[in-house]
Order: sequence, then C-alpha cells, then structure tokens
Amino acid sequence: MPENRQVMIASVPAGPLAEGHFETRSSPVPDCSDGEVLCRTVALTIGAGQRAGLQGSASYAGAPQSGVVMGGAGVARVESSKSPSLSPGDLVVAPTGWQEYSAHAVDILRKVDASLDPALHLGALGTNGLTAYFGLLEVGRPSPGETVVVSAAAGSVGHIVGQLAKLQQCRVVGIAGSDEKCRTLVDELGFDAAVNYKDQDFRAAFKAATPDRIDIYFDNTGGDILGSALFRMNLKGRIVCCGVVSQYDTDNPGPGPRGVPGLLVNNRVRMEGFLVFDYLDRYDEARDKIASWVQGGDLLPWTTEHEGLEAAPRAFVELLAGVNIGTTIVRIS
Amino acid sequence: MPENRQVMIASVPAGPLAEGHFETRSSPVPDCSDGEVLCRTVALTIGAGQRAGLQGSASYAGAPQSGVVMGGAGVARVESSKSPSLSPGDLVVAPTGWQEYSAHAVDILRKVDASLDPALHLGALGTNGLTAYFGLLEVGRPSPGETVVVSAAAGSVGHIVGQLAKLQQCRVVGIAGSDEKCRTLVDELGFDAAVNYKDQDFRAAFKAATPDRIDIYFDNTGGDILGSALFRMNLKGRIVCCGVVSQYDTDNPGPGPRGVPGLLVNNRVRMEGFLVFDYLDRYDEARDKIASWVQGGDLLPWTTEHEGLEAAPRAFVELLAGVNIGTTIVRIS
Repeated sequence: MPENRQVMIASVPAGPLAEGHFETRSSPVPDCSDGEVLCRTVALTIGAGQRAGLQGSASYAGAPQSGVVMGGAGVARVESSKSPSLSPGDLVVAPTGWQEYSAHAVDILRKVDASLDPALHLGALGTNGLTAYFGLLEVGRPSPGETVVVSAAAGSVGHIVGQLAKLQQCRVVGIAGSDEKCRTLVDELGFDAAVNYKDQDFRAAFKAATPDRIDIYFDNTGGDILGSALFRMNLKGRIVCCGVVSQYDTDNPGPGPRGVPGLLVNNRVRMEGFLVFDYLDRYDEARDKIASWVQGGDLLPWTTEHEGLEAAPRAFVELLAGVNIGTTIVRIS
Repeated sequence: MPENRQVMIASVPAGPLAEGHFETRSSPVPDCSDGEVLCRTVALTIGAGQRAGLQGSASYAGAPQSGVVMGGAGVARVESSKSPSLSPGDLVVAPTGWQEYSAHAVDILRKVDASLDPALHLGALGTNGLTAYFGLLEVGRPSPGETVVVSAAAGSVGHIVGQLAKLQQCRVVGIAGSDEKCRTLVDELGFDAAVNYKDQDFRAAFKAATPDRIDIYFDNTGGDILGSALFRMNLKGRIVCCGVVSQYDTDNPGPGPRGVPGLLVNNRVRMEGFLVFDYLDRYDEARDKIASWVQGGDLLPWTTEHEGLEAAPRAFVELLAGVNIGTTIVRIS
C-alpha cells in the first residue's frame, strides 16, 4: 500500500523562514467518502503570500499553527472517485497542500485541461495570473501611453502584470532584486525597462527609467520601494496594493512609507488594496482572455522549477530570498 | 489718504509657527487698473492647510517666501470699480491676503449675497464646505447606516463633514483634541460620538465609539490617528485623504502609518487623496445644496472669531495649537 509523503509545519517561524521550520513524514493515504475524490499531486505552486499565512499576527489567511500539513495549491490527478462529476485520470486544481495524496469534496475542485502543462494552471491561469489581471485592469485601470511600474516584477504576479500592461499599450518598468531578473524582464518578457532596487544608484536609475513619472504603480512589496514610487506618482495616479512581500518574512513590520498621506493629497493619488477572491464571479472571463494571449504568444508565462516534494521547503526559502523568476513550481509526480 | 495695513511673512518658519514669523506694516492703498476693482477686506478665514504653504518643502501651494503679504481668502467690499461687472458696495470673495485693501481683476472674484453673514461665504459656502462636500460624497461615497469617522472633527472642514454624514444617515464619530471640542461635536453639531485623541485611553474609547468598525475615515490629520483608524477599517472601507495637519507645522514629516499597505490589502481598503479644486465645475451645485441645508437648519456652521487684522497671526498660531472650533474667521472692518 502506498504511503502519503507530507511536508509538515514543524514550528511557526518567528523571524526569517528556514527549511528547518518544516519536516517530512509519511502517513497513510487518506480514504475518500461519498462525494469525494482521492487526488495525487502532480505539481505545487508556492507564492510569497503564503509567508503571510505563517505570521503569528493576523492575516487574511487566518492564524498559523504547527503540526499540520503545509497548505498550498496544486494540480492533481484523480486516482479514485466517489462522485459522478469526476473520473480517475481527470486533472484538477486543488488545495492539495504539500503532500502526495489528498481527498477532497468535488465541489471545491476545478477540472482543468489535461492537455496543457500543469504549471500553466498554477501560473498564468491560476491565482497569480488572475491577481495580475484584476489588479491591473480593474484596480489600476490603465490607458494607452501611461507608465506602469511594477515591483517584485520578476515574481509570479509581477511578470504577468508587466506583460498585461504592455498589451494595454503602456510603458512598463519593472523593479526587481537582481541584474539577472532585470535582464529577463527586458530581454525575454518585453518590459521597456527594469531597475535593480539593490543597486547603489537605484533612485537615479528609477528616475531615469520613468521620465514621464508614474501613472500606475502595482505594488507587490510595500516598504521602501513603495516609498520611492510615491514620490514619482503623476496627478491622479493609482497605486494597486497587491502584496507586502517586504513585510512577510518578519514578525515586526516596519513603519509605513513617508509621504502617506501627504503625497496622496498633493497628487490626488488613489491607493487601493484588493484580493483576487473578490472577483471570483469573473474568473472564467479572465482565464479565457489570458489563455488566448498565451496561445497567441503575447503573454509568456515564466517558471522556476523544482523537482520532488522534499524540495518544497527549499523552494519556499529561495523564493523569499528572491532567487526565483516567474511562478515557482514544484513538480511531484 | 487711507493707509493699507498689511501682515507680512517676516520669515519662513523652520519649526512650529509663532506670531513672530509675521510683522505688520502700512503701505499705500493700491491703484486699480482697467478691468480691476479695489476691495476693502471685511473678513478673512485661516485654515490649517495654509501652514503647508509655509513649508520649505514643496507643497501643492508652491514654495513660500518672506517679505510678502501673507496669502489667504477673504470676503471684501468693492470700494471702487474700473469694470462694468462689479459696482461699489458689492460683496465678493477674493484672495485678499492679510491686508485691508487689495486690487483684483474681476474675473478672479466671485460676487456673493451681501445679505448673508460674510463668515458663511468663507465657511460652509467656501472652500471648507466644498472640501467637506466633495471629499465625503464623491471620494468617500457614504451609504445609509455606514460608520463615518472624521479627524480634526472640530475643524473647519471636519465639523461640516460630520454634519453632512449625518444627513446621509450615517453613524458619525469625531476625533478631536479636547473635551470641549468633543462636547461641542456631540451636543451642538449632532455627532453620535466624539473621542479626544489626547486622552490616555484613546484607543479603548475609539474602539468603543466604533462598535461596527469604520466604513469611511475622513482623514484631516495623517500620522498616528490615521494609523489608529487603519486598524479599524471594514472590508471595502474608504479613507478620504484630505489633509495632513499633523505634519504641517514641521519641516520633518514623520514616517507613514504602520499598516500601509498591508491593511489596505487585507481589508481591500481604498485610500484616496483629493483637492477640492478638481471639482471646480461643480461648485455651484454644491453651494446650492449646502445653502439649502443651512437655511433649513440641518447644517450648523460653527466659527471661532477674532477681531482686527493684527489678530490674524495669533489666530493662525491658535488654530495650529488646536484651540479653535469650526471655521476661523478674522473680522477686519
């Protein structure tokens, strides 16, 4: 009888996340009840936002605890079914968590096209892509010719935001944490410019890259980068607050950016937080559009890939350290 | 021949404003050219926002300088006219500055009803009232039953915001800096509750006064009060960024509030700056509505009054020290 390998939260991190905050164990493969299916995980995705779910302080994901399987989204193949709506062999997106097998009520699963790379369902067609889509288009509301700046631009959301902004005929500037990331953004993903925020001369380079200032700043980081962007917003600019990766890997968030709220008043800037789940009833519409852009070659999903369940903790730590580009994928089976 | 008494900016303040930053002198009464009128100031208003115009750092009002007449809005009577569109005796709202006489091209003047108290044209029907109107209704967009919190609630804008929010069937909570102000807000102006932010137990009192949390926070202060409000925003709450009085009387603005942008994301909060001048083409509509509320007794404009031009510097210092309630008016003649 097969075992179910699982990655558990060994302890809730108080400071920076380390691989030691996780441990691997084997459990029995779960039974599935009427209306459920047994799923075998094919691939997982890991996002920086999951770090927020491990913070002791409250976040939208609720309070964390140790001794449970680490949560997360995956693509899985149905192994056995006790529901008429799914059959063995079907591919689904599921809250698998970091484990090989999981059983789920079918109404929380979404059957996806088994002919596509599973990574696509977790990236451009997954929560990351939808976040980029609704954040940029609905909260940011770009017009052709506007300048769009995105932070964590090489990240799972950011690299899609920039490409969607190009599709809206905007000038697109990425902010990322390494020269390699900046090169990928410009050379591979079509960004007009990219600036490394770790450079000594970041401010001068950022200014030079935004000669017409900023109309939309898509903020994945908060902190000092948000502060720098605030000082370059145009009148009636929009700041899309999507994530706060600068504050996730800590228990002691820093103060907010200088210039809030003074610069918002002076430049009549709108700063708006959103969560993708608010747009649930429009996911299908968004996925159709994203899929057509991907198929037409106008949107290039990028992934950083890891092999095997045991690689997940390291993949997470590396993600937070800023090593990845695009969507982080752990392939399991 | 009459003299023109004027209050000059003697030096640009580096720290807290003092009366000594101003000096009074006499000049000749100005001539007026074709198309202009000579105005005699009847009353001035002073707003906390004018302190921002004296900051060395850039603000929307431009860079300050010494050796010029202190700027500001007033109500004036036309003394002599070289324009067919205004006649001696007409009452106008004008950028008089702090002086007895000033000459203006008629196209920057607005003729007002001479039968009303001049203070009304500078308060509820002036920039303060319009700021409250457009900020609350257009940026905040209240619905009946929502909780509206306003800071600097006893101020020129705040005391009108609260009353307009009551007219929108909202629960209204004011934040002010003295028990006397809080009493006036509740007993005289119809606020549901008011909290003194200088009290030791401010946080507990603020929480008790907002049992259903906050849907709209109308921010006139920034700083710590904004920080406290951020933690009590409801999902889809709106923060109307109107002013930053906590940061005006200094050359060294503090950091922004903790929780920006994290709490904006978690609660999908929209935080938006505005300036009343953006709504110029709708001023008449707003003034008509405000006037009807005032005449119907539904909106009570409140003033703190000073007598004589020489009292203006002290009135400004007291305003920044938080002594005034309502619109600060200096009656000149």
